[in-house]
Amino acid sequence: CLIRGDNAFARANRDKLQQIFLASREVLAGGEGDGGAERVSIELLAGFPRDVYALNASPESREYWQVFDRTTGEELPRERWRFLPDKGAVEVSGARRWHRYGADFLAFEIWESINRYNHRVNNWKTEPEMPLDPAHPEVRERMKANLAAWLDRNPHVSVVRFTTFYYGNGRGGWGDYGRTVSPRALELFRQRYGYRLTAETFTNGGLYNPTHRPPSKEYADWMAFQHDFFMETTRPLVDMIHARGKKAFFLLGDQWIGSEPLEGRFAELGMDGVVKSVFNGFEARIAGATESVPVREIRFHPYFFPKEVTGKPTFCPEGTPTEDLRTYWADIRRACLRVRIDRIGFGGYVSLLEKFPDFVEYVAEVSRQARTIRALHEAGAPYAGPVNVAVLSSWGRTRAWMCSGHMQHASVYNQMLESLSGLPVGVEFLSFREVAERGLPAHVNVVVNAGRSGTAWSGGEAWRDPALVERLTEFVARGGGLVGLGEPSACEGGDRFFRLAHVLGVDREPVPGEGNADYGGWLEAGHFIAADAPAGGGLEFVSSLPNLELVSPDARVVAWVKTGECAYFHKYLQPQIVANRFRSGRSVYFAGFKYNPANTRALGRALFWAAGQEAAFDEWRCDDLHAECAYFPGAGRLAVVNNSREARRTAVHLTGGGRLELELEPLALAVREV
Amino acid sequence: CLIRGDNAFARANRDKLQQIFLASREVLAGGEGDGGAERVSIELLAGFPRDVYALNASPESREYWQVFDRTTGEELPRERWRFLPDKGAVEVSGARRWHRYGADFLAFEIWESINRYNHRVNNWKTEPEMPLDPAHPEVRERMKANLAAWLDRNPHVSVVRFTTFYYGNGRGGWGDYGRTVSPRALELFRQRYGYRLTAETFTNGGLYNPTHRPPSKEYADWMAFQHDFFMETTRPLVDMIHARGKKAFFLLGDQWIGSEPLEGRFAELGMDGVVKSVFNGFEARIAGATESVPVREIRFHPYFFPKEVTGKPTFCPEGTPTEDLRTYWADIRRACLRVRIDRIGFGGYVSLLEKFPDFVEYVAEVSRQARTIRALHEAGAPYAGPVNVAVLSSWGRTRAWMCSGHMQHASVYNQMLESLSGLPVGVEFLSFREVAERGLPAHVNVVVNAGRSGTAWSGGEAWRDPALVERLTEFVARGGGLVGLGEPSACEGGDRFFRLAHVLGVDREPVPGEGNADYGGWLEAGHFIAADAPAGGGLEFVSSLPNLELVSPDARVVAWVKTGECAYFHKYLQPQIVANRFRSGRSVYFAGFKYNPANTRALGRALFWAAGQEAAFDEWRCDDLHAECAYFPGAGRLAVVNNSREARRTAVHLTGGGRLELELEPLALAVREV
Repeated sequence: CLIRGDNAFARANRDKLQQIFLASREVLAGGEGDGGAERVSIELLAGFPRDVYALNASPESREYWQVFDRTTGEELPRERWRFLPDKGAVEVSGARRWHRYGADFLAFEIWESINRYNHRVNNWKTEPEMPLDPAHPEVRERMKANLAAWLDRNPHVSVVRFTTFYYGNGRGGWGDYGRTVSPRALELFRQRYGYRLTAETFTNGGLYNPTHRPPSKEYADWMAFQHDFFMETTRPLVDMIHARGKKAFFLLGDQWIGSEPLEGRFAELGMDGVVKSVFNGFEARIAGATESVPVREIRFHPYFFPKEVTGKPTFCPEGTPTEDLRTYWADIRRACLRVRIDRIGFGGYVSLLEKFPDFVEYVAEVSRQARTIRALHEAGAPYAGPVNVAVLSSWGRTRAWMCSGHMQHASVYNQMLESLSGLPVGVEFLSFREVAERGLPAHVNVVVNAGRSGTAWSGGEAWRDPALVERLTEFVARGGGLVGLGEPSACEGGDRFFRLAHVLGVDREPVPGEGNADYGGWLEAGHFIAADAPAGGGLEFVSSLPNLELVSPDARVVAWVKTGECAYFHKYLQPQIVANRFRSGRSVYFAGFKYNPANTRALGRALFWAAGQEAAFDEWRCDDLHAECAYFPGAGRLAVVNNSREARRTAVHLTGGGRLELELEPLALAVREV
Repeated sequence: CLIRGDNAFARANRDKLQQIFLASREVLAGGEGDGGAERVSIELLAGFPRDVYALNASPESREYWQVFDRTTGEELPRERWRFLPDKGAVEVSGARRWHRYGADFLAFEIWESINRYNHRVNNWKTEPEMPLDPAHPEVRERMKANLAAWLDRNPHVSVVRFTTFYYGNGRGGWGDYGRTVSPRALELFRQRYGYRLTAETFTNGGLYNPTHRPPSKEYADWMAFQHDFFMETTRPLVDMIHARGKKAFFLLGDQWIGSEPLEGRFAELGMDGVVKSVFNGFEARIAGATESVPVREIRFHPYFFPKEVTGKPTFCPEGTPTEDLRTYWADIRRACLRVRIDRIGFGGYVSLLEKFPDFVEYVAEVSRQARTIRALHEAGAPYAGPVNVAVLSSWGRTRAWMCSGHMQHASVYNQMLESLSGLPVGVEFLSFREVAERGLPAHVNVVVNAGRSGTAWSGGEAWRDPALVERLTEFVARGGGLVGLGEPSACEGGDRFFRLAHVLGVDREPVPGEGNADYGGWLEAGHFIAADAPAGGGLEFVSSLPNLELVSPDARVVAWVKTGECAYFHKYLQPQIVANRFRSGRSVYFAGFKYNPANTRALGRALFWAAGQEAAFDEWRCDDLHAECAYFPGAGRLAVVNNSREARRTAVHLTGGGRLELELEPLALAVREV
């Protein structure tokens, strides 16, 4: 790690620590003043840990501070507030009674977040490490000198791994660029882009810039600026490593901000490999999608620490690490069948394993399976059906397979990604903007749009652009497929809530009347999509959109659920899956989702049906919902996995109509020549 | 009925039939034209029943037509469309490829809707009745003459009931003024209000103006205009009835538009009574709230027709009318205990009862109980605890106790109203505007705000007014209580989703990240509000808001539910009820609701707790959740009801600490002197 652990330099250069815009706690004007107007004092660091943040009260920092009436959303003019250095506070004059006031300000980070995490969770007792900001040329020089010295001291090392680059995730979590700011970098941005960013660009009134929030134009510009900076900063470091005949790997995890290794110019660095820590299949697909490096490694949870990164006990008496690993591997393995993963790894204190011999044994089994799967990939990619899926989001390829870090269990988008990560279809990621500007690539035959209204996944304001609606309408009208989950294409203010309701054949009431919609007349049992679901459906979803109405005579509810009993006259039926035909194309709507065998199967069927490829669905498919398979034509082998903890028996439908019967031990991987 | 059944006059005066603005079906520009622009033809009446609507293509009608690009929401200038009389269509030129186009136009109603309903559901075979529009002086004169003739023919009648007034509910359902329009009335409006209304004021792009939609300024003006018209039109009719020594009643149901009998100047008519048809308690409270008339009658379902108004079979072999009436009466009776209802009634074909003697017997029982309850009210109102509730909505007192007609089972607001209709608290209804302008009346100690974001119940755009937020913040800060259900004070675009999150102590993520919120640290079992709920809560709600986060350190989750299992590390706990203290006041948040005994009790407790009146909650309270009581201090009597179909045993807590033990037969009403 290059930006922490150099406390001697950091102490001598406190002005070169990393910085962040923070949104203060909001203070309610208590109505004590004259005529409702009064002075309100906002203590800037109130509620923030003082061992992490220190106010940057320099004049160039204060140029960026902003104070808001959060009740009205209006920024206060400068003459309405002043900084009180003694109190570390901002004082607002003429505050309106019962309004909420908040300030955005700049703070130094005096304790690097991962180091602090290890102090708290893993009882580290070392001196807190201060993060240096490579925005300063002096820091970059220091980093180079430190790396050179380290390389000199470690001539035996053949692979150098950047455990971290420079900036950690901001307060918005995964992918938030909030920790990349400084007056120096912001001034360089202004010179290059011709306009000035504000604190609010980064704080958004305290919501910050999580991955699930669609990026503003300003924030997107800043990301591009930071990526350029990352490339300039990193190239000499990689070159130094290569010059000494070593390989350079990096961990895509804690301090990856600015790198965006899935797209852009990252490949120009010539980095040799990526390591991605994973719980789930979709995370393994992130590693698999990092095509900018030749070697892709996944690092398993649980780490060899007493507690998991999530706080769950693992290598301690209450822990069940072997069971945990079984769970993770069953999910990750599905993804490994679809995309080549070159290496697997673990990390932490190996000494902790002494008390868990069954864990060590299972790691050996996982390693065997992973090697077997990698070998299958070596003779070429696995068979994928004639379905090419484009998943839409605000990020497109840049954040392919990403959601908000580890699994967001309440998120329909994340649950869908997890199911998708092991399905035999082609998958790529496109941004709303590129679809609006250029339409869909010719090979794509199904588009997926999923998530809650207003998010980067569903699209939010992107749907106000008629070009996006036009492109997707045309795509389906001319024979394409659309699969929407949750609140696809949702945007307030129109005559429809779903801007693609005319394609989906279903909409949520734009202003919810919450009537007693009974869909009896539109139910269609035994549809291809729901063929493996219990009669009617009754699928288990983590989230489900109510108040749906069918808006096309061609729409059919193919799976539904009863949500209540009514002594009067209503059926309380709620659609779960709606299939529709639109011109030459098709659409499928899921009112919610959850990653489980029945839903994964329904999603697979929906993708094939939407693409008009039902006939191809049976090829290389397991009968049993708990079994999945991947056929490797190059290797002439078929891999079949049992995702469940029970022994299963399944048939695999082969190309040409044959069947292969298999008995599978719990969680087994079986490989057959075919 | 004065506006229908005069077909001879109607046939001779087709230009004086009632009219309505309709939003045409949307037509998708199919992309066949040159460079993406083409001509699109919108057949105006496509999809509408031709036996109900006839195009009004007169020049003064066409002045009001509008054509929209619904994809962008933009109105097309006149030169972009023309009317094709032969096709009954509007042709749009230069339509953009894949955009949706729709037209608003004016149509005559040639078949009155209730008459048509009876033809369809009850097999009436009479000539379809055409509805006349009293906007025309000739129609008003004709109505007067018809009424005079009828009164002359029926000297024996002592009570004249207006089964209908003039205009039925518009296409938006209950309370929609869409059927009151005509070029003549719109011109009179323009002269009086100084501006011109458009078709879109009434169609809203096909969403029309349901009660659950917050009214626009223009629509509210039109409602006031129509109420004035209603008063002018109705006064001479009522006077005629009174002049002959008869009483005038009216049915609050089918054609009540314009009357708004709960507020305004309706009382000036001197009408003698109201009849309201009811399934539920909240509807009985509408009748009870009609203080503009001295006599209030409720008319029970099921009507003596083979099928219920909802289509449910009743007086026919598949029907179970006695069971239905038991269900309705159990709910309605709770409301009758809280407010005086003077009369009960039924309607329909009495001959149908012959085959249902048990129904007739049960009607006798209902009548006995209703008379008993009315007698209790005669010596004064029942005891209500020291809790005075103001329910907020866009409508306030004008639509007190109303939702969207009969029960909307999926609506948290409607379910809450039903529970509230039988609780021993004072209830009034206030509009967001009057609260923003004048604050809360001094006697109110709890405010209720409930419903889905964007509705007239939750408030929608009303929450952008800082004055509303100020007033309610002040109210709670100074000791008041706030109870929010569903999406209270919700409005997009701020740093909070709930604009009163600082008071409620809880918010939904403004941009849903849908993380794995586990509320373990904030759960508080055994709270006063959840004292009767199963440990932890696990209440049954028809709707429940996910992605909640506690935003105040004083907030406590007092009821919660487990929504799933997670093999990894998450608890899948979702808050159901959150209690918070804010300055000197309190707030309670319900993430959903459903009218049932456990939730009704929790709502009652929440109202008392929010008002700081826990100590008073036990007075005149039944232990058993299925039993409720009302104490009538004037009569010195206590009425206890068993709402369930099982025998129950309950204690009633009396003032001063005493207890009365009772055994109650299924659905029993017991009255005791105390």
